[in-house]
Amino acid sequence: MASPNAAKFVKEEEVARGKWLSLNNITYTDPTGRERQWECVKRTTRQTDSADAVGIIAILKRMLKFDCIVLVLQYRPPMKCCTVEFPAGLVDAGESPETAAVRELYEETGYTASVKHVTPALCFDPGLGNTTVQLVTVEIDGNDKKNQNPHQKTEFIEVVLIPVDDLLQRLDDYAKSGYSVDSRVYSYALGLQPKTS
Amino acid sequence: MASPNAAKFVKEEEVARGKWLSLNNITYTDPTGRERQWECVKRTTRQTDSADAVGIIAILKRMLKFDCIVLVLQYRPPMKCCTVEFPAGLVDAGESPETAAVRELYEETGYTASVKHVTPALCFDPGLGNTTVQLVTVEIDGNDKKNQNPHQKTEFIEVVLIPVDDLLQRLDDYAKSGYSVDSRVYSYALGLQPKTS
Repeated sequence: MASPNAAKFVKEEEVARGKWLSLNNITYTDPTGRERQWECVKRTTRQTDSADAVGIIAILKRMLKFDCIVLVLQYRPPMKCCTVEFPAGLVDAGESPETAAVRELYEETGYTASVKHVTPALCFDPGLGNTTVQLVTVEIDGNDKKNQNPHQKTEFIEVVLIPVDDLLQRLDDYAKSGYSVDSRVYSYALGLQPKTS
Repeated sequence: MASPNAAKFVKEEEVARGKWLSLNNITYTDPTGRERQWECVKRTTRQTDSADAVGIIAILKRMLKFDCIVLVLQYRPPMKCCTVEFPAGLVDAGESPETAAVRELYEETGYTASVKHVTPALCFDPGLGNTTVQLVTVEIDGNDKKNQNPHQKTEFIEVVLIPVDDLLQRLDDYAKSGYSVDSRVYSYALGLQPKTS
């Protein structure tokens, strides 16, 4: 078998361009050297040398309460329905993923948080486009006064707190109610499941 | 705050169309009733009433060895590099997600497996497009003779076996070596991490 690493990018042409997205055609050579075409989509907004977005895995810790994960519900036009997602947002020019995550979490949920872990840039849908996300895990001190009545700065986003140990069941409940659950949130929930053998 | 559920789809127009993807413009009303526009991308290949794709969380179990997760490395033109992903594939017309998962796993890796769990259709990148995946968790009996020298039917895909307990570290190593790690795989690995408090 030829190594996948032997494939090579040749060129890319824009087929159509909107304000936010472009449809492109890529020419590449497969691992045997044969030239092939691939259609893809790109965001026109990406800053140099960063991921397109941050996603925030925010764990709210409070005395005598179960740890909760903070998720957001919002209408997503491409899905034609509301989704269940990690809080997230596009990264500003020159902004670190840590700063973007703390800022976006505050804007979307009103919570202030401290960063615990940052992933490399991860691909969203690598057969379709080049969009990437860095997942930032943060902890919210729910005993801190400023996190007891958090005030959102973003309209149209509903914040929900879900006990970490109950995440999978609650995601299934949302899916049954017509919400579209984000694949990263569900993957995280699958990982949380206790090993059964 | 207006409920996100008050938003409504109005209409969708195709701006450009390739063979596999189309660039569309959606008109919708936000939760206050104001009309707004949203650009998005769609696959032209989706079958009615199914997700676009299945992703397969395949756990290989063998006597006296650590449980391993089966991942695939392949060149992805939109990313201009090789990726680390769950085995996956598009769902054929009339095919169940379970059947598609077992078929795709066999084609991509040569392993035969039994299905343990199927998720609802989950969104990939809901701000950008409407693509969806069903994640199918399967178990591979590595003590079964037919899984001891599995034979792939797909070219250009390299299969790797990663001990489940070592997944996060190995994904970081791949990212450092220039691979793009899929966000679902990394989210699953974050969920697997032991709780630290």
